[in-house]
Amino acid sequence: MTSFSLISDTYDKIRSKLVQTPLIESKYLSKRLRKRIFIKAECLQNTGSFKYRGSWSAFTNIKESELKKGVLAYSSGNHAQGIASVASQLGINATIIMPNDAPKLKIRNTKAFDAEVILYDRVSEVREEIGTKLEKTRNLRLIKPYDDPFIIAGQGTLGIELAMQSEEAGIEKADVLVCCGGGGLASGISIVLNELCKNFIVRTCEPENFDDTAKSLKAKKRIKNKLMEGSICDAILTPMPGELTFKILSELAGPGLVATDSQVLEAMAILFLHHKLVVEPGGAISLAAALNKINEIESETLIIVCTGGNVDPKVFSQALDLVHV
Amino acid sequence: MTSFSLISDTYDKIRSKLVQTPLIESKYLSKRLRKRIFIKAECLQNTGSFKYRGSWSAFTNIKESELKKGVLAYSSGNHAQGIASVASQLGINATIIMPNDAPKLKIRNTKAFDAEVILYDRVSEVREEIGTKLEKTRNLRLIKPYDDPFIIAGQGTLGIELAMQSEEAGIEKADVLVCCGGGGLASGISIVLNELCKNFIVRTCEPENFDDTAKSLKAKKRIKNKLMEGSICDAILTPMPGELTFKILSELAGPGLVATDSQVLEAMAILFLHHKLVVEPGGAISLAAALNKINEIESETLIIVCTGGNVDPKVFSQALDLVHV
Repeated sequence: MTSFSLISDTYDKIRSKLVQTPLIESKYLSKRLRKRIFIKAECLQNTGSFKYRGSWSAFTNIKESELKKGVLAYSSGNHAQGIASVASQLGINATIIMPNDAPKLKIRNTKAFDAEVILYDRVSEVREEIGTKLEKTRNLRLIKPYDDPFIIAGQGTLGIELAMQSEEAGIEKADVLVCCGGGGLASGISIVLNELCKNFIVRTCEPENFDDTAKSLKAKKRIKNKLMEGSICDAILTPMPGELTFKILSELAGPGLVATDSQVLEAMAILFLHHKLVVEPGGAISLAAALNKINEIESETLIIVCTGGNVDPKVFSQALDLVHV
Repeated sequence: MTSFSLISDTYDKIRSKLVQTPLIESKYLSKRLRKRIFIKAECLQNTGSFKYRGSWSAFTNIKESELKKGVLAYSSGNHAQGIASVASQLGINATIIMPNDAPKLKIRNTKAFDAEVILYDRVSEVREEIGTKLEKTRNLRLIKPYDDPFIIAGQGTLGIELAMQSEEAGIEKADVLVCCGGGGLASGISIVLNELCKNFIVRTCEPENFDDTAKSLKAKKRIKNKLMEGSICDAILTPMPGELTFKILSELAGPGLVATDSQVLEAMAILFLHHKLVVEPGGAISLAAALNKINEIESETLIIVCTGGNVDPKVFSQALDLVHV
């Protein structure tokens, strides 16, 4: 298991590279939900998502000799941008395998960091297989999107910021709502909170039909989603929880929360209207869960992590259509 | 002139009410403009604009006895929301005079804080006259939008945050680009920087045809705009610089910068795409000026203050149309 001290050491090494994203108390949501509601606006991170943390962690913790021939990553788009951005800053070649139905904006931004992008079909092909083949033939260092101790440690640095900011805001007990694909962010934050904020608990948030983590937490074993596509939350449609991440979550996280796509669009509209934040569907699922599953949440204080903002204008327009002024 | 110590004292009194909005280094803009570029994301302030600072300052510094019969404000919408929000938190009645062509979102949000909203025609009526009449007949305390020492002090608190954040980021010299309507924010920040950051200079940013401050600074006297309407930057279409604010700016600010509406829409698109921020036209004019008037700016570091995010979905969609993915 990724240790707290690895996360803490990693934070010390990479903090100068990161945006310390703000923890904002929401007057509107606090009134509406009758609890104290905070938003951790991680969409303001470099490359528009928390994946930038994990990327810096990987490049910082992996041996230089392993990196010099180039790195390889598979990703629906945010891990892609994180890896591509850091690689380009360090002058390392990056090859990224992305699904051909990834948001165009994510593909475009990844290419803008000079990465080589290889597209695949998410339904008929398995990205891990393409990855393994390229890893061997090109001798590249694979950096997995979540099931990797360094990646978990990097995402966990968000938890360290959260602990400091929560202390400043006088928060003593809270449910921390975090989107969950493979579980890298949720597990990293869980480790930190278990060390620094004993009364905080991570609640994973997932889209309806892609709630493999919620189901797995309940069953106490990893369960696979039946569907492979069919939600706007592209960033978090992983087939099943990671091996490492699930081990951590099953020990430390509370029951998973689930929300629908239309609830996600409403959450995006609220974040536009009341918080001036651009949040992508996968990043807004935490707010969608808070708005619709409040009776499944015990704490009087909620921290809603809005994890990314890489959304195509067309999808964002669907949320704007819900703003009636 | 509003003193630095008034601003500093005000900050101590009201800081717990404020969001300390982040100062974010922009990798994208730094590369594009070949300077070090920071964004002060003030659109994340409560009520979606810096006017919340001035409002808290007014309610904190004005004698309680003057406030109890209620307050009156005229505003295109951001001062309106600031005053209405703080008044409602303090249980004070607020009457707000707004132009009938103000963004619907601003009118809606102001009403949502239980303020009484009175609409007027911006071309045929003079808001100050309506205000004076109501002030007398209803015995309300008028809180002016910018030409008021307490308002200037409140907006100046942004400058104090900026000084602290700049020190942390190692910025020693910078041009600070600030949108300018009546000049409350620009003058407040100028006073602070003149005290704490001697090598920083405020540059006012205005829309084409509404560049009364730029012209006035050049002429060393207050000059009125010829037009009253015809820009999307609704928040900053004041007819001429304030008396108090211009005195400060003429002493402390650099030459004014000007940008067009289409440049503003491009700036909004960039803030959506690269920074996940919702910024309204008046708030994005500082970035528009940076992008298009870079040869009028000497410093190697720019701080771009994005002052507000209260934009109607329809106008925001115009900016989204410019995002090609």
